Amino acid sequence: MNYEAVKPEEIEKRSFAVISEELSEAGIILDKRYAPVILRCIHASADFEYAASLSFSENAVEVMQQLIREGAEIVTDTRMAMAGINAKRLLAYGGKVHCFMAEEDVAKEARARGVTRAAVSMERAAALENKLIFAIGNAPTALIRLHELMEEGQYTPAFVIGVPVGFVNVVWAKELFLGGPVPYIINCGRKGGSSIAAAICNAVLYGMS
Amino acid sequence: MNYEAVKPEEIEKRSFAVISEELSEAGIILDKRYAPVILRCIHASADFEYAASLSFSENAVEVMQQLIREGAEIVTDTRMAMAGINAKRLLAYGGKVHCFMAEEDVAKEARARGVTRAAVSMERAAALENKLIFAIGNAPTALIRLHELMEEGQYTPAFVIGVPVGFVNVVWAKELFLGGPVPYIINCGRKGGSSIAAAICNAVLYGMS
Repeated sequence: MNYEAVKPEEIEKRSFAVISEELSEAGIILDKRYAPVILRCIHASADFEYAASLSFSENAVEVMQQLIREGAEIVTDTRMAMAGINAKRLLAYGGKVHCFMAEEDVAKEARARGVTRAAVSMERAAALENKLIFAIGNAPTALIRLHELMEEGQYTPAFVIGVPVGFVNVVWAKELFLGGPVPYIINCGRKGGSSIAAAICNAVLYGMS
Repeated sequence: MNYEAVKPEEIEKRSFAVISEELSEAGIILDKRYAPVILRCIHASADFEYAASLSFSENAVEVMQQLIREGAEIVTDTRMAMAGINAKRLLAYGGKVHCFMAEEDVAKEARARGVTRAAVSMERAAALENKLIFAIGNAPTALIRLHELMEEGQYTPAFVIGVPVGFVNVVWAKELFLGGPVPYIINCGRKGGSSIAAAICNAVLYGMS
């Protein structure tokens, strides 16, 4: 591999050009409505599998953008995703990012009830007044608890980004939302993570003007 | 995929068991000295490629642990990695995590000089007094600048975790450190990222007692 001279402000553009080029060489054509999200996930992971594994409810990107314009806030299940989401862009529409995972009383309640901190965090979020976009990059139990709250008729998320990564109930938890009533962006299979959750949020935000 | 009933405190253990099982089924035997790091990278990404692409200088894990015991600090190039590294564990040895990327004067200087913020951040870090472990999950230009500082005889990092992800000079920048004098954990190829940088730091920390 040789060194390629690229100006700092052009590195990202060049990266996206390389990704698009390689997708094209592989004969993969992305749905224009979702391409910015897919490209940014590949950019964040160097993993072209995301071109095939990401699943979108009808017009998911546009739907999420409209929610943000209406002041929706984002709830995530990891401090890493919270650090990665462009809070400044979100704030321009009045929104902010929440993460309850590190709160002492969330940990305490989770221990007492024998559930995960992620499950308790979802309940904390459900008590907020704003419309909420859930960006779940780590805990399938967050998706599972959200789905239970829906089934119990207690709460309905405005949007779900379901991209937990892992090996225990991850595939299953994602499938709970596929084709369901809540608009979504889900990465099918085991892959995902905090950086994918943040990449999706940022791709949607960067597409707004 | 069916639901698997696993207690919250056992999810991580079960995940690692699944990973080990699948590696074993694939006939992959990990070097015991590095297995905890490799397993945690797979855990963070659900990507088994890390079993083959991670490269370690001799006894890298032990070397990094000894540095931490001696009070070495960690410098990273993303706020996401900083959020993901277990700061409490590091603090138990007196260390902390630095990230200069979001500082206003770093951005200003980078713009003025036509270099990346990551490059300027490395110079800021090099001015610190402590021994430093660099955990680079995003910017190849961070690795490139560190290598330049070494070549200019200005600075030598104590340890390099070289796992930037991407498409422009990423493979090349990692190769600068492979087989070099600075102890390292490097993920060859394009893959890596903030969550991989954090996973490596945490795997090393969790192996200390």
